[in-house]
Amino acid sequence: MTAPATTSTTAPASLGGVAILGPEQTALLKELDGVFSGWAVSDGAREVIAPPLYPVSDLEKFDVYKNFPHLALTASPIDVAHLGDGPVASRFASGQLQGARYGLPHAACYGAYLFHEGSRLDADVLVTLVNRCFRNETHYDGLRRLMSFQMREAVAIGAFDHTQQTLERFAERIAAFSDALGLGLEKVPATDPFFENTGARALLAKLSPVKYEFQYGDLAIASVNTHRNFFGERCRITLPGSDETAFTSCAAFGLERWVAVLDEQYGGDLGKALDAVRGTARQIG
Amino acid sequence: MTAPATTSTTAPASLGGVAILGPEQTALLKELDGVFSGWAVSDGAREVIAPPLYPVSDLEKFDVYKNFPHLALTASPIDVAHLGDGPVASRFASGQLQGARYGLPHAACYGAYLFHEGSRLDADVLVTLVNRCFRNETHYDGLRRLMSFQMREAVAIGAFDHTQQTLERFAERIAAFSDALGLGLEKVPATDPFFENTGARALLAKLSPVKYEFQYGDLAIASVNTHRNFFGERCRITLPGSDETAFTSCAAFGLERWVAVLDEQYGGDLGKALDAVRGTARQIG
Repeated sequence: MTAPATTSTTAPASLGGVAILGPEQTALLKELDGVFSGWAVSDGAREVIAPPLYPVSDLEKFDVYKNFPHLALTASPIDVAHLGDGPVASRFASGQLQGARYGLPHAACYGAYLFHEGSRLDADVLVTLVNRCFRNETHYDGLRRLMSFQMREAVAIGAFDHTQQTLERFAERIAAFSDALGLGLEKVPATDPFFENTGARALLAKLSPVKYEFQYGDLAIASVNTHRNFFGERCRITLPGSDETAFTSCAAFGLERWVAVLDEQYGGDLGKALDAVRGTARQIG
Repeated sequence: MTAPATTSTTAPASLGGVAILGPEQTALLKELDGVFSGWAVSDGAREVIAPPLYPVSDLEKFDVYKNFPHLALTASPIDVAHLGDGPVASRFASGQLQGARYGLPHAACYGAYLFHEGSRLDADVLVTLVNRCFRNETHYDGLRRLMSFQMREAVAIGAFDHTQQTLERFAERIAAFSDALGLGLEKVPATDPFFENTGARALLAKLSPVKYEFQYGDLAIASVNTHRNFFGERCRITLPGSDETAFTSCAAFGLERWVAVLDEQYGGDLGKALDAVRGTARQIG
């Protein structure tokens, strides 16, 4: 028994947006995920596992269908009575589908808020999770822009200072990691399309950025996000001994993008990239 | 910072089929996944990562829409022009959806076959992967029956003997693991609804079982599956130095079901279950 015939990405020939990661890409992705989740765990985070789909009623809480319905994907069963001979040209028409009560999430952190839904915290909380995220894009591009990708997140829930200090620590680590690997990531304020649109929150975001992205060229591969009390309010999470709404923040990592970036940085030598990640990670707590 | 307020499963209140696993459940699931994937790696398997959705054209290769369309879920974007005021009672009608070119897989191993699609093997292959699987069921039941769950698989591709020897090793390990944990799993021949229906394959399956399930009571939590040359044929994978179609087999583990079973076996004490898994796993190679 030996390794599979190829270690490169194999994507289905006809449509973009999906990729199967070969053994070297997989080893690198897992190592990176271990580094990022390790930072959270060393801060006292506990890991949870969230599902890759949620009832539409849950996702509605976060205004996802109001703000960016064009990016959303739903999980729709087939309407067997109207299936006919099956998909035509490998596509199900909407009339062959039942409609959808479940949606596919475009961020991983929803699971952290829903896990605490309706609860009063005992203390400041730090949670980490990795989940599959889904976005209906107008175009796809290898591992840089996928329809479904893995996002690792560290999520802080509690006092506002807790949420900000968490982000500061993560921003420092990302910068140090970038330096050690020679990535030259640039920290850039950005807007968060997933819970701001026109209105008070968007204005506030311009005055006081709530989102910073870490970019490799024009590709955002990580971000630190302040939500103020948006998710606390929508999930009815309150502070210890109080009816006051909890604050939240998250640090997020697009794992396949990190693989793509390291692939480029190390000239396609993923073994070398893996060694570099292992070597530098030890230096960064 | 402390642990989240609750360590138990939190499922959204209104609809079943999904669950967020708390820290103790997560630790146990990860430990189990480590045991099962470790068995594969010790046999020389390499790990790949497959997407949680595929073009319909890929899934059609495996007859999933012919055999069991009622179990399938598709990934459908929203038809923004026909969205109106949004979902009604948290449901998108089919007319609010665009139709679907991508489907959500109900097994993890498809990624292993697609990864080798159109290739001639250099040697017998062993691949391992874990993926989110999706099934549209008529009813759901906690962690025992979910709409989306994680399946860990070890997949053998190559000579028929290779596929059978792989399954024998896994069946022995599962039996030993069951004994060590006191689970009393029963190995039962079963039919595989996902690639047999009426016809030659189904008849052959009755004469010579292609699937054995390991059951805790009536709950199948693992299986060993012989596919003969079905997937090799559909993905055009050939044997070394030959145009002969490769054979495949897989050992599959439903990770949340293992958590549910251990929860029951250890009387709700997941810490004890975790210790037991760690202790026994060392005895089993």
